[in-house]
Amino acid sequence: MKIETFNFSVRTAKREEFIDITDEVLEFVKKSSIDTGWVKIFVPHTTAAITINENADVDVQRDIIKILSTLIPKAHYAHAEGNSDAHAKSTIIGCQLDILIENKVVMLGQWQGIYLCEFDGPRTRRVDLMIVGNA
Amino acid sequence: MKIETFNFSVRTAKREEFIDITDEVLEFVKKSSIDTGWVKIFVPHTTAAITINENADVDVQRDIIKILSTLIPKAHYAHAEGNSDAHAKSTIIGCQLDILIENKVVMLGQWQGIYLCEFDGPRTRRVDLMIVGNA
Amino acid sequence: MKIETFNFSVRTAKREEFIDITDEVLEFVKKSSIDTGWVKIFVPHTTAAITINENADVDVQRDIIKILSTLIPKAHYAHAEGNSDAHAKSTIIGCQLDILIENKVVMLGQWQGIYLCEFDGPRTRRVDLMIVGNA
Repeated sequence: MKIETFNFSVRTAKREEFIDITDEVLEFVKKSSIDTGWVKIFVPHTTAAITINENADVDVQRDIIKILSTLIPKAHYAHAEGNSDAHAKSTIIGCQLDILIENKVVMLGQWQGIYLCEFDGPRTRRVDLMIVGNA
Repeated sequence: MKIETFNFSVRTAKREEFIDITDEVLEFVKKSSIDTGWVKIFVPHTTAAITINENADVDVQRDIIKILSTLIPKAHYAHAEGNSDAHAKSTIIGCQLDILIENKVVMLGQWQGIYLCEFDGPRTRRVDLMIVGNA
Repeated sequence: MKIETFNFSVRTAKREEFIDITDEVLEFVKKSSIDTGWVKIFVPHTTAAITINENADVDVQRDIIKILSTLIPKAHYAHAEGNSDAHAKSTIIGCQLDILIENKVVMLGQWQGIYLCEFDGPRTRRVDLMIVGNA
């Protein structure tokens, strides 16, 4: 089993937005020596998240942000920083996921892209990647 | 480390339903040569998801669908296809997860079953499995 | 590739609370022989979950519990046990996740802690850990 690691930073521009990081992940897999295995993605933040969703119409990402913000508005909770809505969204979406690789192909579906979810930006966010498998 | 892959299709019958795929996963693990490791499940769709929840009373799955539909009704959002509710549910539940295997036993809890979550059916959905570990 | 397993129990005290299990996970990684890889965490329950969120201000965890309870109140649904809210929260948060390990360092962010989420306590909950990687 081979393990290769990589990380990169993303600068977000708004309080809430989804940033497409599919190309960064695909490039890392392409450069690696792994033929079959999986790539692990981890976001080391508590007001951001990682998800997979539609890559074709940017309105889908905007709608998801709007749906989440309607459910969990920025409001006054106990936490003094005032960003508990962002913490809740991070826990609901999650900060890590894996994507399968078979014969050098990242097994995303036709409409799937990979998105860093910013819920309390603008900030600089880090994305940790680990690719694992057989060469 | 050994890696084995498999995939199968599921035909859903309703717009929203949970399909029990526990048997398919257990069978794949049983046929494999892996003794200790884990099975990875990935759904390559953006309006479906994968979850683990109660296997005893089908009302639990119906209640979860009802709770999600009450929170996120099918409504008019920016995305022209009109299924942004399904995309949001897919991102909230997630499209992938892993289950541990120890000494040929899939380490699900007593009440845990594995469910494909359909949020925009009826459709044909694909489930990708990868089993990894030591023989 | 080396695989090591461990499990421990947590006794919860309230119907809904987050229990910090970061130390238990870090200790297991420290005792293991793995240098680079990841630790898998799995909760074999259908009314509990596992998440990563802020480790500094306990108000964040309380706010997340409050946000979830406001969205999904304990109410009468079809499931006769009356705890469908807890099942829904379990499916929304998820019962498993992985954390990366590089050179013996668990790659959590500065503000990230690991929490068992109890949604239908008090109960005794089990946490399964599997550490995987190269020694």
